[in-house]
Amino acid sequence: MEDISERMRRIVSFTNPFKYISAGENTYHPTRNPKGIISFALAQNRLCGDLMLEQVKKLDLSECDGAALLQYQDIRGMPAFRKAIADFLKDYTNSPQDIDPDKIRVCNGLTALTEVMAFILCDERDTILSPSPLYSGIVKDTGRRPNVNLHPIHLSSKPGAEGEEPYTLTVEHLERGYQEATQQGKRVRVLSLVNPLNPLGTVYTKPQIREYLQFAKRHNLHVLLDEIYLCSVYDQTKPFCSVLSLREDEIPDLNRTHFMWSFSKDFCFNASKCGVLYSWNEKVLEAATVLIDYHTVSSLIQITLTQILQNKEWLHNVYFKTCHERLREARDITMVTLDEMGVAYIKPTAGFYIWADFSKFLGASTHAEEKSLCCHLLSCGVMILVSAGFYGNEPGWFRVLFCNPKPELEEGLKRLKEGCLSYKPGTGSAIADDLAGDLANDLAGDLADVEILGASGESLESLVRSFKVSLQNSDWLKENTSDMWRNENPEVSETWIKELEKNPPE
Amino acid sequence: MEDISERMRRIVSFTNPFKYISAGENTYHPTRNPKGIISFALAQNRLCGDLMLEQVKKLDLSECDGAALLQYQDIRGMPAFRKAIADFLKDYTNSPQDIDPDKIRVCNGLTALTEVMAFILCDERDTILSPSPLYSGIVKDTGRRPNVNLHPIHLSSKPGAEGEEPYTLTVEHLERGYQEATQQGKRVRVLSLVNPLNPLGTVYTKPQIREYLQFAKRHNLHVLLDEIYLCSVYDQTKPFCSVLSLREDEIPDLNRTHFMWSFSKDFCFNASKCGVLYSWNEKVLEAATVLIDYHTVSSLIQITLTQILQNKEWLHNVYFKTCHERLREARDITMVTLDEMGVAYIKPTAGFYIWADFSKFLGASTHAEEKSLCCHLLSCGVMILVSAGFYGNEPGWFRVLFCNPKPELEEGLKRLKEGCLSYKPGTGSAIADDLAGDLANDLAGDLADVEILGASGESLESLVRSFKVSLQNSDWLKENTSDMWRNENPEVSETWIKELEKNPPE
Repeated sequence: MEDISERMRRIVSFTNPFKYISAGENTYHPTRNPKGIISFALAQNRLCGDLMLEQVKKLDLSECDGAALLQYQDIRGMPAFRKAIADFLKDYTNSPQDIDPDKIRVCNGLTALTEVMAFILCDERDTILSPSPLYSGIVKDTGRRPNVNLHPIHLSSKPGAEGEEPYTLTVEHLERGYQEATQQGKRVRVLSLVNPLNPLGTVYTKPQIREYLQFAKRHNLHVLLDEIYLCSVYDQTKPFCSVLSLREDEIPDLNRTHFMWSFSKDFCFNASKCGVLYSWNEKVLEAATVLIDYHTVSSLIQITLTQILQNKEWLHNVYFKTCHERLREARDITMVTLDEMGVAYIKPTAGFYIWADFSKFLGASTHAEEKSLCCHLLSCGVMILVSAGFYGNEPGWFRVLFCNPKPELEEGLKRLKEGCLSYKPGTGSAIADDLAGDLANDLAGDLADVEILGASGESLESLVRSFKVSLQNSDWLKENTSDMWRNENPEVSETWIKELEKNPPE
Repeated sequence: MEDISERMRRIVSFTNPFKYISAGENTYHPTRNPKGIISFALAQNRLCGDLMLEQVKKLDLSECDGAALLQYQDIRGMPAFRKAIADFLKDYTNSPQDIDPDKIRVCNGLTALTEVMAFILCDERDTILSPSPLYSGIVKDTGRRPNVNLHPIHLSSKPGAEGEEPYTLTVEHLERGYQEATQQGKRVRVLSLVNPLNPLGTVYTKPQIREYLQFAKRHNLHVLLDEIYLCSVYDQTKPFCSVLSLREDEIPDLNRTHFMWSFSKDFCFNASKCGVLYSWNEKVLEAATVLIDYHTVSSLIQITLTQILQNKEWLHNVYFKTCHERLREARDITMVTLDEMGVAYIKPTAGFYIWADFSKFLGASTHAEEKSLCCHLLSCGVMILVSAGFYGNEPGWFRVLFCNPKPELEEGLKRLKEGCLSYKPGTGSAIADDLAGDLANDLAGDLADVEILGASGESLESLVRSFKVSLQNSDWLKENTSDMWRNENPEVSETWIKELEKNPPE
């Protein structure tokens, strides 16, 4: 009998296109490790954490009694917390109606909430429709344990026939995607929309949202709106429309419309692990209450976040104001470098990144080549995410995060620029695919929003395992080119060698 | 198409034998609601929360930087936290070897961890073996989403043939249970042991643990040890043996032995939502890392608990010392009342409750009758849990929690005594089963460790729904006996009537 169950073996092997990765012990630090890897990958806003940190440190527990702090709480979320969230969402979405705290459920993170919603809305092998490039965390979270499929609707980086902007999602796209999926025998249950969009950093307009909701109603689909960057719209040139900003009578199928948000991105508080569901559907809410028994949020975090939410003046006039300024500035700095490099991009108005076209540096328009470039960039000390990680079908588009502190951002952009210019098409791929196939995937291929591991680098261990298998099987190694590669990549290989010493090849 | 998936409908309907319940708006409070219901049901240690509260309030975030507090953390648990847990477990289990932080995973609560382990160790409809009476949360947590069956091995309240103490689990019991299950076509994968035992409040000895582990090895079973009351052994007359106190070479199948603990009970911190796994199995640990992506613990809680764990002096000389004294005192007070009532019980040495035999008050030895008595007690203002809630097969055994503040404990015991004496066999059952079948189940029948809901009382709403259905279908009501019952039970009926006004019968 195996150590773990059959279903768990499937879940563990559900690695593509998402792998855990970190720069391991080689993470950049301005003084402690200035040659370490700068991550333009992990979607954390490190520009405004200083403000939030100060606020979290003001946590005041003096008024708390044991019942509130220590004992079992309302499983849906503490009443004061749900009330504070309701007020906050009403303000920040300009909701024309009150947000009802009883329609809110809190859950330990949007990752967990996405999984919960997949269980609630879908049976195994049901299908979720999603425009692409897409935030691939959804594929992982709905695919692993809930065993739900995602059907991507590929959009184009070219402007539309009628002059639409690149990547514009039309109802025709949705209808075509739906027909395609159903013709393949798939049962489509959900339309997934991320707004503001990840990885594009753009937003849907109110007429668009309305059209999408109508499309969903026609096909009896649930609409799952992930609005995790709701308050990270830093440039109002294009108006953002939360689904909560619609009047209830404007929403075609209230019962199948579900809103999700979290404190991770907008509050620079990824480690708070607190996601929020808002739904009008009583059965969904009841089901969510059952499942979040397994995804509860500690009272301490609920109390902390309540206090921050109640500091409305600070949130509005200090925090978000500063955040938006800093995000705008960092975007602009990044755009300057991309312009200098002659790299085209989608100008974002929200989120933490720019979706940019590095295809001109590739030798061929393949995902292998984009991985190869990405591997090379990594050896130059900067990590970005490639189109394959977002189910993009146009190789060479990368998501470049810009939420690093300014000196780190500038250093990273310098490395990015130099790395692209020094790249010889195909060579990174040789490093990657020949040396250690899986390693290349892990390092560069199929990354999206990934959870970071500790400095001891569990992911690195798994990379090393792949590396060892490749070492044993490779003819290429017999030709001693690993030494060559080591000489060319001293930083990266040093880390690996250290790991290899800890985990010698069996 | 239904609002929720087929699997979710199954999960939501997985209500027996566990229902969410609270005393709703009618929870006892010494000054605000002295006539409210005193709960001797929910397994919270409310005797020592004052000490822990003081400690939590000392939380010092001054040294924390943004990376530790705000950003993504090692998914297995922050390294400093796992190190502190490892030290703590070594001390409190007298582990002969070091506890390896890399074999620890933290997870938002033992409820969630139990579910995670069911996914990891079992496929759907696999079977878990467990001695009974048992902590029925395990049935819920493994049965709902993981869809795993539990096969109880019923033990007897009578002393064994060879003079063994009541409820002694022998290897013969285990072998018989295993054969029984496999003959029924069940695939047994796991032996579940809770030690200290819930609801018995007793402990397994070292020779017993060794025998159980050997039995499991013979059948290639995983052993899942829930030691959540590890530090709540307040009476050392019988020595407690954690599985971690065995030498590794004494554990027959290290790879299939898994330890679980949490901060809920021993730290009086149910709302911390932090459970701990310790396993020697690399595959299980790897799988756990994948799944706890959905069951993460916020950095804030990890930092808080780390600080408390590091205060070793206080934990040892103040906290646990006082806790054990108070638990012992509360147990002794409760035993005096039970003795006065002539109620037999198993004398506990650990945990928060006494397992006691109220069968002499029953009209017949049936679970319906025990529910009936329980309903009657509820109308007398005290809530206890019945044997059916623990898969017990001897009606009339109740689990009586004693962890309430002393005046509340004494008032509750008074009500318990008077309630038993004033009970007329069958009448509670009439109230319960005739008036509102499900209601009786909810209120008295099948309760175990239940999560409390908010004052707005979602569970109460669900009770009221059941109540309404019964109202509409009942002949009994035509005879106007509901008025009679109302007169006899003014407190309870008033709450219901209030709820009925909010949710009028359709």
